[in-house]
Amino acid sequence: MNENANTLASERTKVRRRAERGRYDRATVNAILDEALICHVGFVSDSQPFVIPTIHARDGARLLLHGAAASRMLGAAAQGIPLCVTVTLLDGLVLARSAFHHSMNYRSVVILGRATEINWPEEKMEAMRLLVEHVAAGRWKDSRLPTDEELSATRILSIPITEASAKVRTGPPIDDEADHALNIWAGEIPVAETFGAPVPDPLLRTGIAMPDYVRDYRRPSNR
Amino acid sequence: MNENANTLASERTKVRRRAERGRYDRATVNAILDEALICHVGFVSDSQPFVIPTIHARDGARLLLHGAAASRMLGAAAQGIPLCVTVTLLDGLVLARSAFHHSMNYRSVVILGRATEINWPEEKMEAMRLLVEHVAAGRWKDSRLPTDEELSATRILSIPITEASAKVRTGPPIDDEADHALNIWAGEIPVAETFGAPVPDPLLRTGIAMPDYVRDYRRPSNR
Repeated sequence: MNENANTLASERTKVRRRAERGRYDRATVNAILDEALICHVGFVSDSQPFVIPTIHARDGARLLLHGAAASRMLGAAAQGIPLCVTVTLLDGLVLARSAFHHSMNYRSVVILGRATEINWPEEKMEAMRLLVEHVAAGRWKDSRLPTDEELSATRILSIPITEASAKVRTGPPIDDEADHALNIWAGEIPVAETFGAPVPDPLLRTGIAMPDYVRDYRRPSNR
Repeated sequence: MNENANTLASERTKVRRRAERGRYDRATVNAILDEALICHVGFVSDSQPFVIPTIHARDGARLLLHGAAASRMLGAAAQGIPLCVTVTLLDGLVLARSAFHHSMNYRSVVILGRATEINWPEEKMEAMRLLVEHVAAGRWKDSRLPTDEELSATRILSIPITEASAKVRTGPPIDDEADHALNIWAGEIPVAETFGAPVPDPLLRTGIAMPDYVRDYRRPSNR
């Protein structure tokens, strides 16, 4: 496997259940990573798995994570232990006629890999920019940029996106043929992450206008 | 630790980063588990952590998971290996004046434990009911119930909720005092999971009305 490979599949990332839902191309994986606001990072400590939600950002063919330099998870991850980063977008509740065939529509990505730490201040600064821009495109240029102390207090990790899979389900329920005759409603309830009216900080100075990227906030697929 | 303990805290679940955000009472943990549509399950195979999104349901002081009897994850989990189940509700994007203090408002739960398999058909049926009702309250009574074959093809796991923690962040950004004077907008963009107009199955027989629990779909906190 290498960063230019056309497929991200491996024995370990190959989708086994509902294999027809598996995707291994970089475009599909990237779009899901870019759309999702958070990921779940899995690591092992004393044989116990831990799964922690956190913000991520994609930088080309690598995934960036960050957190406090004192964080237990990041400290362990920086040692190069095996990680799993999973991102899930829930798109719909699929109500079949049979209880058994109830399902969800979703897009998910699983990345397996090991992290390396980014230590060079300029590279850390660029990673911070990508993380802020991942959450709110347009925000970085307005922000008070990190000081040397803040950069030192932040640990940035990079995970190569070389072994991964996406899994995607779309569409209506798939009931058994015989169940189509039943007098039971079936269909999908679409699910979406939506963004409410922004709430200014109570400490906000008067006369500061709300930026357009806040007022019209949207994720990449809706831009 | 036992199922009647007042605290779900342990050395392993104690929130270390931002300890003031940690909660260990059953009411807080239960409310987050009940609200979230999906969880992320972490398990270890050949020293590699895997994190898989799936549906859960709470049955009192235990968490239920289900899937295909042939599923790799559930098969491993049924052997009683250590698991971590994490549930995350994203409530807001917190835009601070400083890039460094950008954050998220969220409610998350981390459960550590080992699963046991539920084999007794009546108990499996009740677990299926709880899983369907978790996703769409009111749906079970309308569904075509599982056959013996479908029950056999489904693996149900139960994890005691005895070692867990919740972590909750709410409120505005917390900037450094000196940054309050800056000419930068700051505040929160609320995030919510919302449900669109239901899409009937193209194969739906004519004359079947959409049930109220579909038309007026909402999560427990909005009922």
